[in-house]
Amino acid sequence: MLVAKLTGNYQTKLFLSLFIKNKLMKVEIITIGDELLIGQIVDTNSSQIGEILNDFGLEVSMTTSIHDDHDQIIQSISEAEKRADIILITGGLGPTKDDITKKALCDYFNCSLVENESVKNNVKGLLKKLDIPFNSLNAGQYMVPEKCIVLPNKIGTAPGMLFEKDNKIFISMPGVPKEMYDLMNSEVLPFLKKKNVSRKSIFHKKILLSGISESSLSEKIESWETSLPSYIKLAYLPNPERMCLRLSAYGDDKAKLKTEVSRQVEKLKKIVPEYIFGYDEDNMAGVVGKLLMKKNTTVGVAESCTGGNIAHFFTSNSGSSDYFKGGVVSYTNEIKKEVLGVKKETLDKYTVVSREVSIEMAEGAKRLLSTDYAISTTGFVGPTGGTKDIPMGTVWIAVAGKRGSVAKKFIFTMDRKRNIVRASQAAINMLRLFIISEIK
Amino acid sequence: MLVAKLTGNYQTKLFLSLFIKNKLMKVEIITIGDELLIGQIVDTNSSQIGEILNDFGLEVSMTTSIHDDHDQIIQSISEAEKRADIILITGGLGPTKDDITKKALCDYFNCSLVENESVKNNVKGLLKKLDIPFNSLNAGQYMVPEKCIVLPNKIGTAPGMLFEKDNKIFISMPGVPKEMYDLMNSEVLPFLKKKNVSRKSIFHKKILLSGISESSLSEKIESWETSLPSYIKLAYLPNPERMCLRLSAYGDDKAKLKTEVSRQVEKLKKIVPEYIFGYDEDNMAGVVGKLLMKKNTTVGVAESCTGGNIAHFFTSNSGSSDYFKGGVVSYTNEIKKEVLGVKKETLDKYTVVSREVSIEMAEGAKRLLSTDYAISTTGFVGPTGGTKDIPMGTVWIAVAGKRGSVAKKFIFTMDRKRNIVRASQAAINMLRLFIISEIK
Repeated sequence: MLVAKLTGNYQTKLFLSLFIKNKLMKVEIITIGDELLIGQIVDTNSSQIGEILNDFGLEVSMTTSIHDDHDQIIQSISEAEKRADIILITGGLGPTKDDITKKALCDYFNCSLVENESVKNNVKGLLKKLDIPFNSLNAGQYMVPEKCIVLPNKIGTAPGMLFEKDNKIFISMPGVPKEMYDLMNSEVLPFLKKKNVSRKSIFHKKILLSGISESSLSEKIESWETSLPSYIKLAYLPNPERMCLRLSAYGDDKAKLKTEVSRQVEKLKKIVPEYIFGYDEDNMAGVVGKLLMKKNTTVGVAESCTGGNIAHFFTSNSGSSDYFKGGVVSYTNEIKKEVLGVKKETLDKYTVVSREVSIEMAEGAKRLLSTDYAISTTGFVGPTGGTKDIPMGTVWIAVAGKRGSVAKKFIFTMDRKRNIVRASQAAINMLRLFIISEIK
Repeated sequence: MLVAKLTGNYQTKLFLSLFIKNKLMKVEIITIGDELLIGQIVDTNSSQIGEILNDFGLEVSMTTSIHDDHDQIIQSISEAEKRADIILITGGLGPTKDDITKKALCDYFNCSLVENESVKNNVKGLLKKLDIPFNSLNAGQYMVPEKCIVLPNKIGTAPGMLFEKDNKIFISMPGVPKEMYDLMNSEVLPFLKKKNVSRKSIFHKKILLSGISESSLSEKIESWETSLPSYIKLAYLPNPERMCLRLSAYGDDKAKLKTEVSRQVEKLKKIVPEYIFGYDEDNMAGVVGKLLMKKNTTVGVAESCTGGNIAHFFTSNSGSSDYFKGGVVSYTNEIKKEVLGVKKETLDKYTVVSREVSIEMAEGAKRLLSTDYAISTTGFVGPTGGTKDIPMGTVWIAVAGKRGSVAKKFIFTMDRKRNIVRASQAAINMLRLFIISEIK
């Protein structure tokens, strides 16, 4: 079947390369923390590391989550060592008593804790910066197992610790996701590159879409999907903020994989152009921000039901002050009237959740903040609110621009928090389409 | 040591109960799916099962995630069988080719796949309901290992499958979270209850704190922590929004555990009263909202560097319209002047990131929105911004109330997104302390 699909030298070459897998190093992840096993915390580190290594060209063969328990840590590492070549460990490195990973590592690699000068300086520097008085517990933070190579943690006090034994690599990292993420990219990957571990070529491309459901999208792109070459895998990765399609190409020649993936993306763009707003790590507000800057224009917001979240999405992007001037969160009719200038008659005649009020809010914000564009939202995001005529989940969104305003009604059917996110993204997407329509 | 700590009949009783622990069944979870190991999907099933069993009185000792790989499945089950008494498995039960859990189970328990009437009827019924034409793949779905007890899946096509061998229990469930969840509650727990597996009572209490670092907190509470009875475990669970201490009491009498935990919480409240803002699922904005409602007062915000996130935190709580009236996001000096009424002289004399400007912003918002209180933020959250005198990360936060205003300078040293979260929480916490000080 597979072979039948493949034609031509190039594809055959890629096809064959799929079978070099067995040469690959085996990687296992061990995440440590009681909270992971009683359902207090979801283990996001394992999947994050899996994703990073996958992009790097290594595949995780197994992940294990265990308790903050000295003996279990040692048992798990020794079992992982039997199966894998690279063992990545997260968790249990904080200053507090429930963290005992370091002692277990000392016993496993049979060495003792010693003070480390560079870690000491880092800990003291961070505490100073944070204006936190140094205490005895911090002293423990710059003790590391004698046999480890320290991997500096630039944003936290607990360093990464690397051990090598019988051609196997063991790396212990903090459980704080951000710190683990930084260490993976700044220390672990460069180390593995230097080590020349055998990898396969993988190329991922994420296509970000908005304004379409998973099922109707997959219906629209079905023939494109089935026509994908066998070495390119498609994954649907939706979340409340956006729909994401990920193409993953596996082969031996990254450049060629890139070329073929771009070719497929171009095909896709022809099928669903209006829904694609960005790629890879883009976010909707940042993409719209670039559009605004390109036209040297600015935006403001008037938020009722989204309660400041649209402003938050814009201002989460560094440099947003170049195009985002500000906004008004009008959670009461008084503020809609007195600050945004919504007419009392409009509120009385059409009620607060209406096309008319959303437009007066957007135009009011545009005037008050003297911006080129303004976005407004008014609605019921739940769980309470809603009337006989205007059901819970109803949100009116308006965009005001230089050449008039548009408004649209949406119905969101999830919980309050996700409805707020969806309404915010829908609003920013409306501005995106509004600006694009002006350009045309 | 342990015994020395414990005195009195009651504690001794609880103390003894600790040693019934070894009677406790060991539970392990195995989640199956390639997507879990390349970072495409986060394994929420493990933590979900962990939470369900924890409430039920069983503790998960370890979780493992593996590939859709026949041999790896068999190896993992046999390794788990060596360690545990109950092995719960999810994933790999779909109709598609990469799902091979059932075949592996047959080989492990050495039996063959047989057609199951009840599963057949369930599959056909569901397909009919969903109006999906029956195909050969579906036929595979009602074949089950001969030696298993079928656990009916009411909302999906793949049934749960239960095996017993040498007094050990093996249960395979679908990977679809909702289906796993239903099976756990409708079939697995009742079965374990019927089996009379020995359980312990567990009681958890989370104490939420703000405005204190993990290390200085643990120093302040060290003597309290070390004096905790041995059957109560303490865990530090910090995140950018707040610090969390979790007390977990293990014993045989839930009521008594609750009493003792409350006693310990009362002790803790005497040591760090000002930092504790809530418990369990509370959030800072919701807690402050309750304070405001109790006094029948309202709040508004004037946000510069937090860019709408404080408003978002308030309005994420259902019912927030009772106390949160609205806010102004003033990302430019013009809006600070024209909308909030900050004086040009103040901006010129003290610069925008200053005590004086933060106070004029808060008082301006209080006036404009006619609220009882207002919170303001102005600062540099990074990665750009900052001056020689006012370093990146500096944020001035002000609270305006009926009896005057207060302002405080903070330095946040993380990335932009987390600095925004921390500044927002610090600001809401400042209002909390401000209101409390008024009550006194």
